[in-house]
Amino acid sequence: MPKQRQGTPVSMLARQLTILDAFDAGTAFLTLSEIAERSGLPMTTTHRLVGELVEERMLERLPDRSYQLGLRLWELAARTPRAMGLREIAYPMVQLVQNQVRQHTQLGVEGGYDVVYLERMSRSDAVVNATIVGGRISLGASAIGHVLLSDRPKEFLAEVVESGIRRYTDKTPQTFAELLELVERAREVGYSIAEGFIHPAARGMAAPIYGADGQVLAGLGVVVPSGGPVDMRIVELLRRAARGVSQQMRAAYIDPNHPNALPGAKFRVLINSSKSSMEYFDEDGS
Amino acid sequence: MPKQRQGTPVSMLARQLTILDAFDAGTAFLTLSEIAERSGLPMTTTHRLVGELVEERMLERLPDRSYQLGLRLWELAARTPRAMGLREIAYPMVQLVQNQVRQHTQLGVEGGYDVVYLERMSRSDAVVNATIVGGRISLGASAIGHVLLSDRPKEFLAEVVESGIRRYTDKTPQTFAELLELVERAREVGYSIAEGFIHPAARGMAAPIYGADGQVLAGLGVVVPSGGPVDMRIVELLRRAARGVSQQMRAAYIDPNHPNALPGAKFRVLINSSKSSMEYFDEDGS
Repeated sequence: MPKQRQGTPVSMLARQLTILDAFDAGTAFLTLSEIAERSGLPMTTTHRLVGELVEERMLERLPDRSYQLGLRLWELAARTPRAMGLREIAYPMVQLVQNQVRQHTQLGVEGGYDVVYLERMSRSDAVVNATIVGGRISLGASAIGHVLLSDRPKEFLAEVVESGIRRYTDKTPQTFAELLELVERAREVGYSIAEGFIHPAARGMAAPIYGADGQVLAGLGVVVPSGGPVDMRIVELLRRAARGVSQQMRAAYIDPNHPNALPGAKFRVLINSSKSSMEYFDEDGS
Repeated sequence: MPKQRQGTPVSMLARQLTILDAFDAGTAFLTLSEIAERSGLPMTTTHRLVGELVEERMLERLPDRSYQLGLRLWELAARTPRAMGLREIAYPMVQLVQNQVRQHTQLGVEGGYDVVYLERMSRSDAVVNATIVGGRISLGASAIGHVLLSDRPKEFLAEVVESGIRRYTDKTPQTFAELLELVERAREVGYSIAEGFIHPAARGMAAPIYGADGQVLAGLGVVVPSGGPVDMRIVELLRRAARGVSQQMRAAYIDPNHPNALPGAKFRVLINSSKSSMEYFDEDGS
């Protein structure tokens, strides 16, 4: 995982990505001048780069002359094992957890010093929750972040602290010592609890999803109301569901010749796991 | 929609995309030499471009020195209204149709001269179906393709025919006259039937999803066994579900000042529609 880049982008690719990054979670459509303003590039450069991106279908021009991110990005994303592949495979398990806990259930992976949320299911009357799908929260502040950090070296934890952990509440971990204690605890017990780290009313709980070589691939978590003892039934549910996703990822993406391959596993890319999802639902009697 | 490019890519961006395109639906992991071979670029160029793409998190290097498509592509794709946004919003309706028809249900948009499939749900015992999520089939051969073509000019139909429609069966439309008749029929009746065009045993059926300005945005379809009369209950189900998705897309993406905005609509990007999906399921009593 490369560090997040500092300062001005220099390569052509970096500039083009600056254009794409101008479209954020709250902004689906932008005009040329809005793109220039948000990306901090001169209007002439913006015009040229946008033209190239439209030519390659990374951007699409709308009838009202505004732009949106293009279909080709989605086509490429549909082939990413660590995002779309994982999300599709995890979907039935995320739904299973959500149907039991009925608050928020979410799936996250490491992206730089942040958790990137691949999935979130919520009930409308659930406790407050800061995450959105495609959004980010510092690894240091979130329960999923702590399970993701649980197989990373101490040096990386130090970098996360150094990158700055937003102080959401007076409980949000801010120091290396605080973070190390939480992460070591998560490693020992195989789950993490983030009590009031992001909002006083919210408790995050998470369990790790493992890859074939035992590395932590992702975290599966819930956000429930804070206060009172930890409900160990939820911990067990999260761990069982995370184990299920781990096994399905191994079945989907591991070469059958790999020493850790599951018996009978075949190497197949599950960019379409709707099929398996549906079978799962069918078995469920729905 | 720009035409699909012919010949050798020249711009730097085009070369970088050639690298990313080496990862196809069946190939999640590639070594440097496999990337060079598939992209047809010299090894030194490949090495340099892969390095830049890794630096920008468009590619990720794995411990075994192979590469996979990177998380950043998914993060960008999570903001595409025409793909991820549409897919998330349509999810409950696709599932509703699938629960009724219990064969294959799919969602597709226009990409060049092809249908690009954003979603597919299937039962394991359903009739044969050639599509995969993220995959493509010529607009000319598929039921979803014909509804997508139903608001496009004749010149575009001619281009689709000229681009070559793969002859899956002896019924697959091959000429401009055949395609025009099918597309005009789809426009008249508001749905399309593709009887044995892709496999003799399969019938495609599709209805259009409309954007705010009445343009066809996507197609919602099923694949069922061919033969016998067309089941008009399925046609009605598809049309009703497609209408539901059309309204939700308008609610999610249209500026409330737009003349066609729904009453009470607010402009919000629904990259997280898991919430609304869950509410839908909750209402459904599940």
